[in-house]
Amino acid sequence: MDLNKIFADAQEAFLFYKNLSGKEKGAFLETLATILEENREEIVPLAVQESNLPEGRINGELGRTVGQIRLFANLVKEGSWVEATIDPADPNRSPLPKSDIRRFLTPLGPVVVFGASNFPLAFSTAGGDTISALASGCPVIYKAHPAHPETSRKVADCIHQALLKTSLPAGIFTHVEGGIDVGQALVKHPVTKAVAFTGSHGGGKALFDLANQREEPIPVFAEMGSVNPIFCFPKKLANDIESLAKSFVASLTLGVGQFCTNPGLIFVPESQAKAYEKAIAAELNGIASAPMLHPGIAQAYYDSIQFLQSREELRWVKVADPKHLINGSTALAEIKASDWLKDNLFQKEVFGAFAMMVVYQDQNDLLEIATKLHGQLTITIWAEDEELKDQLFLLNLLEEKCGRLLFKGVPTGVEVGFAMQHGGPYPSTTDSRSTSVGAYAIKRFARPIAFQDMPEELLPDALRDGNPLGIWRMVNGKWEK
Amino acid sequence: MDLNKIFADAQEAFLFYKNLSGKEKGAFLETLATILEENREEIVPLAVQESNLPEGRINGELGRTVGQIRLFANLVKEGSWVEATIDPADPNRSPLPKSDIRRFLTPLGPVVVFGASNFPLAFSTAGGDTISALASGCPVIYKAHPAHPETSRKVADCIHQALLKTSLPAGIFTHVEGGIDVGQALVKHPVTKAVAFTGSHGGGKALFDLANQREEPIPVFAEMGSVNPIFCFPKKLANDIESLAKSFVASLTLGVGQFCTNPGLIFVPESQAKAYEKAIAAELNGIASAPMLHPGIAQAYYDSIQFLQSREELRWVKVADPKHLINGSTALAEIKASDWLKDNLFQKEVFGAFAMMVVYQDQNDLLEIATKLHGQLTITIWAEDEELKDQLFLLNLLEEKCGRLLFKGVPTGVEVGFAMQHGGPYPSTTDSRSTSVGAYAIKRFARPIAFQDMPEELLPDALRDGNPLGIWRMVNGKWEK
Repeated sequence: MDLNKIFADAQEAFLFYKNLSGKEKGAFLETLATILEENREEIVPLAVQESNLPEGRINGELGRTVGQIRLFANLVKEGSWVEATIDPADPNRSPLPKSDIRRFLTPLGPVVVFGASNFPLAFSTAGGDTISALASGCPVIYKAHPAHPETSRKVADCIHQALLKTSLPAGIFTHVEGGIDVGQALVKHPVTKAVAFTGSHGGGKALFDLANQREEPIPVFAEMGSVNPIFCFPKKLANDIESLAKSFVASLTLGVGQFCTNPGLIFVPESQAKAYEKAIAAELNGIASAPMLHPGIAQAYYDSIQFLQSREELRWVKVADPKHLINGSTALAEIKASDWLKDNLFQKEVFGAFAMMVVYQDQNDLLEIATKLHGQLTITIWAEDEELKDQLFLLNLLEEKCGRLLFKGVPTGVEVGFAMQHGGPYPSTTDSRSTSVGAYAIKRFARPIAFQDMPEELLPDALRDGNPLGIWRMVNGKWEK
Repeated sequence: MDLNKIFADAQEAFLFYKNLSGKEKGAFLETLATILEENREEIVPLAVQESNLPEGRINGELGRTVGQIRLFANLVKEGSWVEATIDPADPNRSPLPKSDIRRFLTPLGPVVVFGASNFPLAFSTAGGDTISALASGCPVIYKAHPAHPETSRKVADCIHQALLKTSLPAGIFTHVEGGIDVGQALVKHPVTKAVAFTGSHGGGKALFDLANQREEPIPVFAEMGSVNPIFCFPKKLANDIESLAKSFVASLTLGVGQFCTNPGLIFVPESQAKAYEKAIAAELNGIASAPMLHPGIAQAYYDSIQFLQSREELRWVKVADPKHLINGSTALAEIKASDWLKDNLFQKEVFGAFAMMVVYQDQNDLLEIATKLHGQLTITIWAEDEELKDQLFLLNLLEEKCGRLLFKGVPTGVEVGFAMQHGGPYPSTTDSRSTSVGAYAIKRFARPIAFQDMPEELLPDALRDGNPLGIWRMVNGKWEK
């Protein structure tokens, strides 16, 4: 594998691809969506086999992947995402005439994307990171996840077909396989302008550090998961104890607990703790253990549970025999808030179907928990509306700790749309100002450039007089179309 | 100085201040603008005395500072900057009902700002970084620049008066004085959520590294200057040689060359080099040397020129006697493109009124220069329109190397407006996706948060049904007001 050749091709493709119109980029993405659908019967069995995930789930994930590609295709075809902003000249201004300045977003350059093992399609080869980078105008060098190599090759092949069909250079997408050393070399290559990653804290943080140690530091958008706490209030629990036990267990154990947003931490008032624990335990009994994504993840789950079993602050409501644990069996432990608050280790994510139930006594506990809580992708509040009237300060604190705050339902199931924020304060991501799901994900891979007194015939269409693209633009400080 | 007390106050103020309406934040900023104007006669002499800059310039800088504050006041009063985005619920969606998701930008938290010596007002205590952070809803801990302590104290006092007058907590703005160790302690403090800096590459990069080594890494928006190359084309030079020599020298020597955007590098075609050099030399003779901002900067200028004089690739068109150099005297050296291309050292910024004139022979030289050029705040093209017709590929390359591309005039004079981009690829800044001048500067200090199924009465006004603030919002993927 000649990395310099790969990056030279990517850079050459970039200088061409970045200047394509949104319509052309959109057509490429739409072609890709169609090709992926046409290859459903080949892709799905491969992904099922390599991920241990059920066919229904993988079929749904392919649908999500295709829907996501179409969302970005429409976004770039419409074109307003570039934040076109025009401050017209004023030659008569005193004491100095004012220049014509026009700004828009331009793509960063070649992006290295690392796929996730837990979503072999939607967060992998043609997943959200790859597609939002391609949509912005950046070529992608994709580091395949070793847990699903065949799936990855097949999807990469679909991307190459789509490039061929729309007569675009192959350097726009390159599929790279290899170990950690290869991933590091991709991040270190001087042509790389940004990195996107979904996976463990250790992996994401290592890439972040590596990227910052380069001669030219580059942004790393690493989504590293979190424990996604649920805060339960007494009246709500008392009113809906059975259904909230069902919801919690369903969310906790979805995909054998292998979601970035599965709730590994739940805060329960002492008054309801016994009853709720009982309801949860009953639900957990109905969950069959299932194989995890790959042996490395299963081993890490096993090791984490083994370690936590050595901590005497925890009382185990449910924990399987070690031989079942390695098979992704569910586990639940209970701890007093006062103990939980004493050690940050209890905030560490255990990737898998394990949850810690923290029993709080009073408002002081809640405020201290909110203050000490680490950054999360999501926080969920289960309360009757009347219970929230006195909790404005708590909500104010919790807003500072998450990217998405839910008042109903469960944190798993990250909607792909315009308003979604899938990101959050560190350590859930390395850049709380970014999202890896939803339309705004495209903004990660672009930067503003301003053109001063550029001749009209050189201006990009987005910034020309008369607004030939018909996009939303800010002119003289006012949005217009 | 009790840093923990300072940050505890800032954090407490943050939890209050972030929830104020745009109208309230705007009123505070407007009050500040008025108070600064009322104190003009005290502020200007202090800044003149401490910066060695002339009164006319400082008076103008105060006007710019006040104008900038009003721009941000209007921006937050209007309110659309928060990117309110609403994906309504769809309870009938199949197979799963769709939740209501509403997203907007929320401030990051306490921000540490470092002032610049070369703009004692506009990029200092109440300068663009401080004001855009305050506008976003972030408290500011301001590290005063030791080159203008009295000016800084006086402006800080005006900010405190404005807080008092609008009944806001003092913790929203704290003025801190001290050395490098104090600055480092501010960046390292766990409550700090972002850093803004304008100054040298060494200073900015050190803060960037420090911030990334924290347990919780935080963003650093460091604007570290650049050499702002000008590319001259033969016909344009031949047509306007005198006026382009005047423009170049005026921009190079403005404020004794102490601007982030002064042009320290100029590419000239061989056919015009002799004539242009002569015209520039004549202009330079009319420029009196003047004291630099402070002795440290003057010494660094002196040392850089001394060092460059040891390089035999350079031919000196003008260089003063060493005793004048320490007084900010102008200097100009010429070098062949083939030599310039061989050593990155020739791309290093010399802060002061020094420029390197690089003589290129042909198109190959230009393309190689564009490929090897480091990231810049600005690049300027001086060409007749007809000369650009064959230069589309060169322009394509140069776009990748700057935040602002000019086709007329000079890079100094950074307009404060909506379309301005004052930032650029590394090493000109640590985050090419940000600007430190203009309305978009506010976005550096905010992050998205999404509320899922939040009860209507808890929603922030920007996201409520019926759009009570009357701001631009994206609803179901469409912008509306």
